Amino acid sequence: MFDGVEYESEKRDRFIFSHQSKFQMKVLLYANRLTPRNEPFFFEVLDSLKKIHAEIGVYKDIKDHFSERNEKQIEDLEVIYDYYQLKENPYQFLLSLGGDGTILNSTLLVRDIDIPILGINLGTLGYLSSVEKNKIKEAIESLSKGAFSIDERTMLQFNSTPVLFREENFALNDFSIHKRDNSSMITVHTYINGEFLNTYWADGLIVSTQTGSTGYSLSCGGPIVAVGCKNFIITPVAPHNLNVRPVVLSEDVSLTFKVEGRGDKFLCTLDSRHALITSEHELAIRKADFKIKLIDLEKMSYFKTLRNKLMWGEDLRNKLRQ
Amino acid sequence: MFDGVEYESEKRDRFIFSHQSKFQMKVLLYANRLTPRNEPFFFEVLDSLKKIHAEIGVYKDIKDHFSERNEKQIEDLEVIYDYYQLKENPYQFLLSLGGDGTILNSTLLVRDIDIPILGINLGTLGYLSSVEKNKIKEAIESLSKGAFSIDERTMLQFNSTPVLFREENFALNDFSIHKRDNSSMITVHTYINGEFLNTYWADGLIVSTQTGSTGYSLSCGGPIVAVGCKNFIITPVAPHNLNVRPVVLSEDVSLTFKVEGRGDKFLCTLDSRHALITSEHELAIRKADFKIKLIDLEKMSYFKTLRNKLMWGEDLRNKLRQ
Amino acid sequence: MFDGVEYESEKRDRFIFSHQSKFQMKVLLYANRLTPRNEPFFFEVLDSLKKIHAEIGVYKDIKDHFSERNEKQIEDLEVIYDYYQLKENPYQFLLSLGGDGTILNSTLLVRDIDIPILGINLGTLGYLSSVEKNKIKEAIESLSKGAFSIDERTMLQFNSTPVLFREENFALNDFSIHKRDNSSMITVHTYINGEFLNTYWADGLIVSTQTGSTGYSLSCGGPIVAVGCKNFIITPVAPHNLNVRPVVLSEDVSLTFKVEGRGDKFLCTLDSRHALITSEHELAIRKADFKIKLIDLEKMSYFKTLRNKLMWGEDLRNKLRQ
Amino acid sequence: MFDGVEYESEKRDRFIFSHQSKFQMKVLLYANRLTPRNEPFFFEVLDSLKKIHAEIGVYKDIKDHFSERNEKQIEDLEVIYDYYQLKENPYQFLLSLGGDGTILNSTLLVRDIDIPILGINLGTLGYLSSVEKNKIKEAIESLSKGAFSIDERTMLQFNSTPVLFREENFALNDFSIHKRDNSSMITVHTYINGEFLNTYWADGLIVSTQTGSTGYSLSCGGPIVAVGCKNFIITPVAPHNLNVRPVVLSEDVSLTFKVEGRGDKFLCTLDSRHALITSEHELAIRKADFKIKLIDLEKMSYFKTLRNKLMWGEDLRNKLRQ
Repeated sequence: MFDGVEYESEKRDRFIFSHQSKFQMKVLLYANRLTPRNEPFFFEVLDSLKKIHAEIGVYKDIKDHFSERNEKQIEDLEVIYDYYQLKENPYQFLLSLGGDGTILNSTLLVRDIDIPILGINLGTLGYLSSVEKNKIKEAIESLSKGAFSIDERTMLQFNSTPVLFREENFALNDFSIHKRDNSSMITVHTYINGEFLNTYWADGLIVSTQTGSTGYSLSCGGPIVAVGCKNFIITPVAPHNLNVRPVVLSEDVSLTFKVEGRGDKFLCTLDSRHALITSEHELAIRKADFKIKLIDLEKMSYFKTLRNKLMWGEDLRNKLRQ
Repeated sequence: MFDGVEYESEKRDRFIFSHQSKFQMKVLLYANRLTPRNEPFFFEVLDSLKKIHAEIGVYKDIKDHFSERNEKQIEDLEVIYDYYQLKENPYQFLLSLGGDGTILNSTLLVRDIDIPILGINLGTLGYLSSVEKNKIKEAIESLSKGAFSIDERTMLQFNSTPVLFREENFALNDFSIHKRDNSSMITVHTYINGEFLNTYWADGLIVSTQTGSTGYSLSCGGPIVAVGCKNFIITPVAPHNLNVRPVVLSEDVSLTFKVEGRGDKFLCTLDSRHALITSEHELAIRKADFKIKLIDLEKMSYFKTLRNKLMWGEDLRNKLRQ
Repeated sequence: MFDGVEYESEKRDRFIFSHQSKFQMKVLLYANRLTPRNEPFFFEVLDSLKKIHAEIGVYKDIKDHFSERNEKQIEDLEVIYDYYQLKENPYQFLLSLGGDGTILNSTLLVRDIDIPILGINLGTLGYLSSVEKNKIKEAIESLSKGAFSIDERTMLQFNSTPVLFREENFALNDFSIHKRDNSSMITVHTYINGEFLNTYWADGLIVSTQTGSTGYSLSCGGPIVAVGCKNFIITPVAPHNLNVRPVVLSEDVSLTFKVEGRGDKFLCTLDSRHALITSEHELAIRKADFKIKLIDLEKMSYFKTLRNKLMWGEDLRNKLRQ
Repeated sequence: MFDGVEYESEKRDRFIFSHQSKFQMKVLLYANRLTPRNEPFFFEVLDSLKKIHAEIGVYKDIKDHFSERNEKQIEDLEVIYDYYQLKENPYQFLLSLGGDGTILNSTLLVRDIDIPILGINLGTLGYLSSVEKNKIKEAIESLSKGAFSIDERTMLQFNSTPVLFREENFALNDFSIHKRDNSSMITVHTYINGEFLNTYWADGLIVSTQTGSTGYSLSCGGPIVAVGCKNFIITPVAPHNLNVRPVVLSEDVSLTFKVEGRGDKFLCTLDSRHALITSEHELAIRKADFKIKLIDLEKMSYFKTLRNKLMWGEDLRNKLRQ
């Protein structure tokens, strides 16, 4: 794709970048909310990239953040405003500076443009961000050497009549429908490949990707789906019928929904974005045609991240039962 | 309280009506939504009461229902419009015609007026309605003979600054706080008798009475609390931290809450009523000073009702594991 | 495989038998526990098969059942005693007379011999048995016409040092490890493809196939995995750490386990069989090299069976929350 | 009870010791498993008690531990061997050196002898042990000044025909029945005050006290019951029917059980002790006639302990949903 760099396919959706010759990296820096506390890490990234003579661009939110200061280090960098501009002017890597939420947002910019994303974690340990903020230099060095692998992650694609979320109709984590206006549960008629699955009577309903299985779905009793699995999960939120449990499906299915309820409006979400729907809306979910590529620098074990995030190693309660 | 009738206290909040002499019953009929399908049962109740020369009143919704028809059987009955009128003009019994939801609504009319409620179930089997619609005559006969017991049920009392729900600030089933505007969880700081309990980070939080334990709280993983227990339950809705589990408390505690979140408004419910709150509201829950008295005609076992409602007797899945 | 019959591949592991010419069916009848109540159905199956001039064999348990009676209808039928005899002398179909448990047992006879199994359900509705006992004639007619499809189901293969379960080292539903001798939890060190997954501290641990996801795993909080998904599920039984949740994996992984605990012996199960293990045992689970083929006559929807078995259509509790 | 010391009753089963004059404390030291790592703390306790001229006794396990060493500091101390000896020769306080499990064991020695127990925690933070090992001196000083309160905890009493657990037929945490020999679930017929509650079809069944609600019951989906609540909890272990959920009861009920299953023997536990039962056993549980008195030195908040033990304060997963 870029000179001197080639993907090699590997088991379970991983691709290895193998560095073959000298080349100039072109890197886009992405952030949504730089703060005084975060800024030093931004400049550390910038410095590290300049040292290796990388071509550098910044997302408009970063430009906006520094706009009143006439920050010289930013001045000459290319600014990327949206998907269309990026598509015409592609980068080799996107560095997301923030937490997992920032990575989610960056997918709206990247979409089907084939740019691998590296998460540099400026907050608490995330599932998706693989670089801690005290290892920025090492990370950029690894990047420049091609010493990393890539995890391809399935995205959900959402379609509806009438149209909602326009071109930003996909999600890396989950889609959900939820009651909104009052205490009444909603009724969600659900179909798989056109076949009736169930009528859910609940506070809401989640469709999660493998990636999203450790998020909202987990809070509602859904399972953890290991990386590499080709699955969606349908998880009801507070279902009235206690027998109604999360269902794991192939990610190749197409799902359709109709909602009913006492309220006029219901909430519909894609990752952290939301819209209002009515019982008139016809909603559909299927796998997007493209994947998001996450850079995994340290080959940090997926299960080790799980154990850390979920504190599986901790003795939560006393050992009476032992 | 009424001539010829006296309560006798019994274990676990039950009181027995013992009939001591002839007296004229005074009965208030309550319903919210009479339908063509339900009307025959209403008239059956009316006829049965007239036969035993009961004094009969109807709630305004019933009067309204028949208002355009000049229904003669209704014409001469006293109409009760609200709590204040009822307080001046008390009845011996209230007959709630509908489901458990109708009983919930009737508590807004009765409040602390000491009128026992008999639920005549016009829908599916309820937890609170003890008389099936094909046993109306027998039920009214039992009532007239004093052949019943009474379950006293604790009510939640809600207070807030600024004021919400005005005088209808109590609930038989549950109080809840819930996210509303977007996909973000809310943060609920919770105090017991002024002491910090926990900061919940979740879709919402439920405080349930013993009566409400088989409702919304159960859908969110709360336990069933048997009748007679003096407990409240705090049940989080889809909490982010998987260790955060339902907590059973004495019903003598006072609970206070402050809510934070990304949205401007949050949903706050008392049984099936709702209001919008902001992070400015200070919310408090404690046991109401009065109890609701439910008439139990058949001494139907609480646990038998549970087994039926929750289908504990059914073999849900195949017996592979046996 | 047999004259006049060919498989056609279809999506999601289904194969369609298409009937192409006249042929004589060769059918093995399998049952473990015929009872006076079940016998008439056995004879109905026998009669129906004789009418279409099928070649018929019976499993030894059936022969044993009738051994003292000199039942003439059985006398001349071939008797199949074990896997090795069956392998030399293959049948076209196996008819399992009983419930899902009987089908599980029949897989011990069939193993990797490529004989499709049709479950004739003599008890309550099963997940695996597709023919109700009042539709025996129609079922055999469909069979003879080739009017059915086949679901291929993944089996677990178990290996251990020292050896356990000898040649019957596989399971259609699940493998489990469980505490046995006292109230103490056990410690299960678990590895995926040699990489450390987690140390479970719990009553036990289940590894379930897609097929077994509606069994023991579901009782312990595991998800329902839809037919066609290529997944295993690891579900802890009563884990001490509340964050430890079921994990869905690709069925292509290999899993290894070491157990520790206060007791000397622990329980280890494959479907309904069990053995005792110690902390000296090294246990391993992976996908078996063969599939079990289940005949689906009526193309009964998987999700319809789920809804029926799990009573998703029922209103379990009152509709207060609506 | 002892000279110079009196209980004052307080809300929620708490009693305050108020020190009124000089008196000599009589303290029994209890431990089950002293280790080289724990010994220094034992001697620190001993020294602290000697300094205030307390009369000191040791439980036989401590004597045994030092038996081969002729440890001089132990030599002259009174040794308590069992309940009967202790009953004739009562102590003012029992100091339990170990974890919550050690406190559980100490209740077998104390039973209905009215000796308050102070847990000195030599392991990880317990629910019941209120003194950390680095605060031993301060703790003994508080004890000597009467600066503590007492939590009275309800005990379960177990009775059976034929007799099991002889005189040690009670539990501070929980009673359970469990399958043992094979993979089959057991059937537990359960009665409350002689009335049929339910037939549980499950791996097992737990009856927990308020104290035990954070133990085994919590692992099986039971609620946390706050200190001061007068409740038992019935929690099924891996029930087949997903509607069967934990039930909170008044602690004044009497419960009876009959067990059936494919195995010959089932496991029956009281705290960490166990026995084997058959389907012939009739089992009964009720509240014991005595309470266990736990000393709470620091008036450490019950809810603070909960939050620490259950890590409610931790952000377990990323904040994507926020």
